[in-house]
Parts: sequence; C-alpha cells; structure tokens
Amino acid sequence: MTRKVFYISDGTAITAEIFGHAVLSQFPVDFEQKTYPFIETLAKAEEVRNLINDSFITTGERPLIFHSIVNPEIRAIIYSSEGLDYDFLNTFVAPLEQQLGIKAEPKAHRTHSIANDSYNARIDAIHYAMDNDDGVTMKNLEEADVILIGVSRCGKTPSSLYLSMQFGIKAANYPFIAEDMEDLKLPPELKRYKKKLFGLTINPQRLQEIRQSRLADSKYASPRQCRMEVKEVEMLFKRERIPFINTTNSSVEEIATKILSKTGLERSMF
Amino acid sequence: MTRKVFYISDGTAITAEIFGHAVLSQFPVDFEQKTYPFIETLAKAEEVRNLINDSFITTGERPLIFHSIVNPEIRAIIYSSEGLDYDFLNTFVAPLEQQLGIKAEPKAHRTHSIANDSYNARIDAIHYAMDNDDGVTMKNLEEADVILIGVSRCGKTPSSLYLSMQFGIKAANYPFIAEDMEDLKLPPELKRYKKKLFGLTINPQRLQEIRQSRLADSKYASPRQCRMEVKEVEMLFKRERIPFINTTNSSVEEIATKILSKTGLERSMF
Repeated sequence: MTRKVFYISDGTAITAEIFGHAVLSQFPVDFEQKTYPFIETLAKAEEVRNLINDSFITTGERPLIFHSIVNPEIRAIIYSSEGLDYDFLNTFVAPLEQQLGIKAEPKAHRTHSIANDSYNARIDAIHYAMDNDDGVTMKNLEEADVILIGVSRCGKTPSSLYLSMQFGIKAANYPFIAEDMEDLKLPPELKRYKKKLFGLTINPQRLQEIRQSRLADSKYASPRQCRMEVKEVEMLFKRERIPFINTTNSSVEEIATKILSKTGLERSMF
Repeated sequence: MTRKVFYISDGTAITAEIFGHAVLSQFPVDFEQKTYPFIETLAKAEEVRNLINDSFITTGERPLIFHSIVNPEIRAIIYSSEGLDYDFLNTFVAPLEQQLGIKAEPKAHRTHSIANDSYNARIDAIHYAMDNDDGVTMKNLEEADVILIGVSRCGKTPSSLYLSMQFGIKAANYPFIAEDMEDLKLPPELKRYKKKLFGLTINPQRLQEIRQSRLADSKYASPRQCRMEVKEVEMLFKRERIPFINTTNSSVEEIATKILSKTGLERSMF
C-alpha cells in the first residue's frame, strides 16, 4: 500500500510540493501524492478534510500533509483532520520572530504572485529568452545578461528558459551548426559581446543519443558528426578562453545554477 | 542594517532558496541573501563557514542559514559556524522515519537532477512548448496535453513554458490576432482537439498597458483594439463552451496551477 500525501495551499501549492518532495525523496518508498491548490474558503477546506479522513478510513494509515495555508481558520480545519501535518513553514516562524525581534505578518500569495516587484522583469526575461533562442536574431544581444553557445541539442534552450523563469536572467543562445565547422570561429556579433559568452558542451555519445531520438539515422545524429562538432566547439572555447561546462550529467537546474555560479550573475527570487 | 541570509547546498540550492524565501517573505523586512550551491568538498564548506563567521564579526548579528546539505561531514562544518541554522529538511526526517517505519537514505542530488525518471519527458515537454508556441505550427497538436488560446500578450507563452518546465506538461498555444476578429471562430485544427483547449483572457486595460510597453502607440496597443479583441475572444470561449480564466492579477505560477486544477491534468515533480 503506497502512503497517501496531500499538498494543500491557499495559493499555488508549489512551495508545499517542493518542500514535501525534497523531504520524501529521501525515503526509498513510493508515495501517492495529490495537490490541492487555491483552498481559499472554509467550504473547500472542509472538502479536503473529508478527503483526508476518507483516505484514513479506507487505508487505515494517516495521510501525510504538507501545507502552506496562511489563513488561520482554514488551517484549523486541515489541522482537525486525521492527517499528519508536517507544518514546515510555521515550525520556523516562532524562532525567526524571536531572532529578528519582529512579528511575522503572514499574507497569502506573498510568493509566486505578481505582487513581487520584479515580476514584470521576469516576464520580460522569459519573452527575451523565447525571442533570442537558437540564434534567430543577433539584434538584442546588448540586452543579454548571458549568451549561451554550443552545438545543437547540448542544452542551450532549456537552460536559457530556466534562467529566465526561475531567476529573471536574460539569456540568449546561439548554436554552432554543421556548416560552421570547417573554419569555426566566433561570428562578429558574438565577438562584440565576448564577456557575456558562456559555453555548453556535452559528451559526443550522449549527444548522439539525443539527436538520434530526434532525427534518426541522419548525418546530424551520426557518431562521427557528433564527435567532430563537439571537438571543434571545445577547441574554440579553449582558444577564445570562453568559460564552459559539460552538461552530460546535469539537469537544467544544475546547468543554470552552475552558469550563475561561474559568471557571478545575481539571482532574483519569486 | 539588513540581516544576512546564506542559502547553502551540495546541489543547486534551489530547494533551500524556495524554502527560505517562503518563510522570510512573511517578515516585513529586507534581507541580504546570498546563495552557495555545489558545496561538495570540506574545503568549500570551510570557505563558506569563514564567510558566515566574517559576516557575524562585521555586523554583530548571526547570519540566518538555510541549507540542504546531505553529506554529514560537510554539514558539520556549516553547523560549527556562528550562523543560525534553520534545518528545514532534517527537522522533519526523524518524525517521518518514525511514522513510515523506515530509515531515510539521504543522497545528494535526489531532486533537481537527471536521476529523476521523468527528466527526459520534461525536456521533451520544454522543447514541445518552444516548437509549438504562438501557433507557428498546428502539426503537433495530437501530442499536446493542453492547448492555450487567447489574444496576443494575455500570458499564453510564459504559462506554456512554465507548465512544461515545472510540471512536464506538453502545452501548445495559439493566438487570435486582429485579422481574425471580424468573424471569429475556431480554426478546424483547433476544433479537432476541442477537448484540449483552454482559454486565457485578461482585462483590456491591463492588456493595453502590456502592449503599449511593447509597441507604443500602435493600433495593436490602442484601448479600442484591446477592448474589442478581448470581447470577441471571450464571446467565442462562451459560445464554444471552452473553459477559461482571467490572468490579469495572476502570476505564471498561479495561471499554470489554475489550468492544472481546472483540467485535471496530473503534475509531475522534479
């Protein structure tokens, strides 16, 4: 029997999910996880409480609860359920109040909402990443915080998007393609913004797998082509002293945070 | 004097940031926040400990620490600093061990890494959102989990990207443009996938502000045009019984989670 987990919030429930997922992923068991966002009324809270209690009756096991509910009346209804509440936010509020010498002023939707000052800048960064993906234009590089460069399918696009979405960073990206390889050099537009350039590379075998699943049995996906492109581009990075990382074993979060850490770019939080 | 905050991790530090940000945002004060990801060696941990101690000496106030370090030796070095450690993950591990009747097996990089089974599906979803943005092609709608429709700049693109990035959902999007308005109807390709359609709308005044900052004093950004487009598209949603939400006061997280909650699409977690 897999243990039931309830993520509950009067907002998006994203914080509750991320926290619960981080804690539960340390346990080598499967969980049946369900998320209840926007529980903003007593009636909705009672519905969720009933689901929790039903689950307890059916399974004989208390469901685990991770909530980020700010309203005390709504919270009280969830507390009154048969679930086990791991109250990850409030556990730390009292010690922080004591340490900071001020009272917390919990308000709903304080994170993950447009109330955040930098929200518009973040949306601009997302549109910037979209509009300056894959070298489609070189006109807006002046605005870029960072310009990711590398061979096709080494992770530039997801990393650019993640940088914009999570951290509000304006990231353009530019691919080196097969035709560039014979005499590989930086285009003048990139040379002009050389300090913003950051290279991504990847193991040729992994690149080949990725390209194969996209365009099976093409020249583009051949082992020989992948090896050659990676070698040429890495030589360019070294020749031009462009910082770069290998993305083979890294997730988009890991690539993005490594780029920030190596470039010293500041993160915004939302 | 703003209080110093250290986010420290042997991974990306994204979980630590999200947790700390959620707790601290309840306090009506400014914090000076700095993130130290990939603290994977004792030497690096000692460097961070020195920074924490320096900060204490300089400011006379203990820095606040939110960490997600798995390795006990590295963690011990951070514990030994002058900072105040709000140990948000480990606080809940012991009670969960007792409740689940098994020992936690903490491993670094268990979240936000490619070790996650669904990682490739998520990257596919991100590329899908990019490739099927803004109605550039209607060829891949069969694959879509959801198709967002609405006027230009009502939030379709950031929402599609967020759905793919955070939840692994394949979201296409399609804009209704000025030329469509005279006799607005669903194109046959969208009609075919009507069950996947989800509408976004926005208050005309807000739309006008957004368009104005993009293309100042154009017909596209005129109050009259914005009012007309929103009215026509909302009438279409109602006529065709397409579910829709108003994005005016919602962040990309709120829009995405409302879409999930109204469509019943399942979230993946990474």
